[in-house]
Amino acid sequence: MRADARHNRDRIVEVARELFAGRGLDVPMAVIARHARVGVATLYRRFPTKEALVTEVFAGQFAACVSVVDDALADPDPWRGFCAAIERVCAMQAVDRGFSAAFVAAFPDAVDIEQERDRAIQGFAELTRRAKAAGQLRADFAPDDLVLLLMANCGVIAGSTETAQAASRRLVAYLLGAFRAEQAGPLPPPAPLNLLDFLHAPVSAENGIR
Amino acid sequence: MRADARHNRDRIVEVARELFAGRGLDVPMAVIARHARVGVATLYRRFPTKEALVTEVFAGQFAACVSVVDDALADPDPWRGFCAAIERVCAMQAVDRGFSAAFVAAFPDAVDIEQERDRAIQGFAELTRRAKAAGQLRADFAPDDLVLLLMANCGVIAGSTETAQAASRRLVAYLLGAFRAEQAGPLPPPAPLNLLDFLHAPVSAENGIR
Repeated sequence: MRADARHNRDRIVEVARELFAGRGLDVPMAVIARHARVGVATLYRRFPTKEALVTEVFAGQFAACVSVVDDALADPDPWRGFCAAIERVCAMQAVDRGFSAAFVAAFPDAVDIEQERDRAIQGFAELTRRAKAAGQLRADFAPDDLVLLLMANCGVIAGSTETAQAASRRLVAYLLGAFRAEQAGPLPPPAPLNLLDFLHAPVSAENGIR
Repeated sequence: MRADARHNRDRIVEVARELFAGRGLDVPMAVIARHARVGVATLYRRFPTKEALVTEVFAGQFAACVSVVDDALADPDPWRGFCAAIERVCAMQAVDRGFSAAFVAAFPDAVDIEQERDRAIQGFAELTRRAKAAGQLRADFAPDDLVLLLMANCGVIAGSTETAQAASRRLVAYLLGAFRAEQAGPLPPPAPLNLLDFLHAPVSAENGIR
């Protein structure tokens, strides 16, 4: 790729990152092109679909998610690992609204992203199993409760980044307290929030990624 | 008002209620007019601003909120009253996405709505005070934590109404458990989510109500 094409591409990714972080993934491709000062045709030549652009923008964060879970699995204390994984992923969501949306979006053509997300989810399932086996996590914690927590975290991160971070930290602290095994109070049944239900939503080039 | 004008007005309110419930308050006035099979001019003659339409649609629910808090204040057990008020308001949010948004929107010209919301908020502050005085609610529960909970609840009520209700019930049960006085774990400081910060957001006729 020539230097000016490389420069264009980098600027598109940088602009898209900022727009997604502030406004979520619904920003139209035409708006991204305008902010990056390139034509729409140039944008689509570099990134034929919005999915391709989102994949490029968030590749680093999906990889970071896997690292977070790997670090947590390496912790000899299962409860501390479980809490650290949740705290770090929610903190990543709180500074970047785009990543929250990307995490639950479908990427039918992005095998790498799907694989990294699967690794993160399976690693988290293992963290859950260990924390329960150690008697530290309540036995009725359901896999869907992780999705519940991520969705609740998305709900509190409106507003400025600082407020979002403070709100997210407080919510996560409350919920981790509620997840502890000492919590004996009965719960209503888990909501069927299987992440795969979200992932199977139809995807279109422009607006399919939610 | 003539019978056909009355009929038009009722249909507009009914259609707006359904659209707000399913899609939030961002539905454009033109879409509401089309679904109600009236011209945009007719819609604006009946409701000069979106705020006026939102006020009409949700007047009953704001009044219901006040009743919920009044019922809770009448409960001799402060903790039971506190929990019931939160459970019932969150359940109202879960079946009606529009109401969630309306509850935190600014209504500069709707004195009735503002007064009812103020009554509900002040009543809830009194519930909080009593539950703390009875040693049932943790002392570090902050007024902003109610807003935190309402925002988290908004986050989990995507999807079908049944899933939304189940998710909301589970989240609320977790959080009420976390709010109990027995919870001694330290918390990060409360996020500055003062409801008034939301209410003071600028409002425009078409899209100002978030």
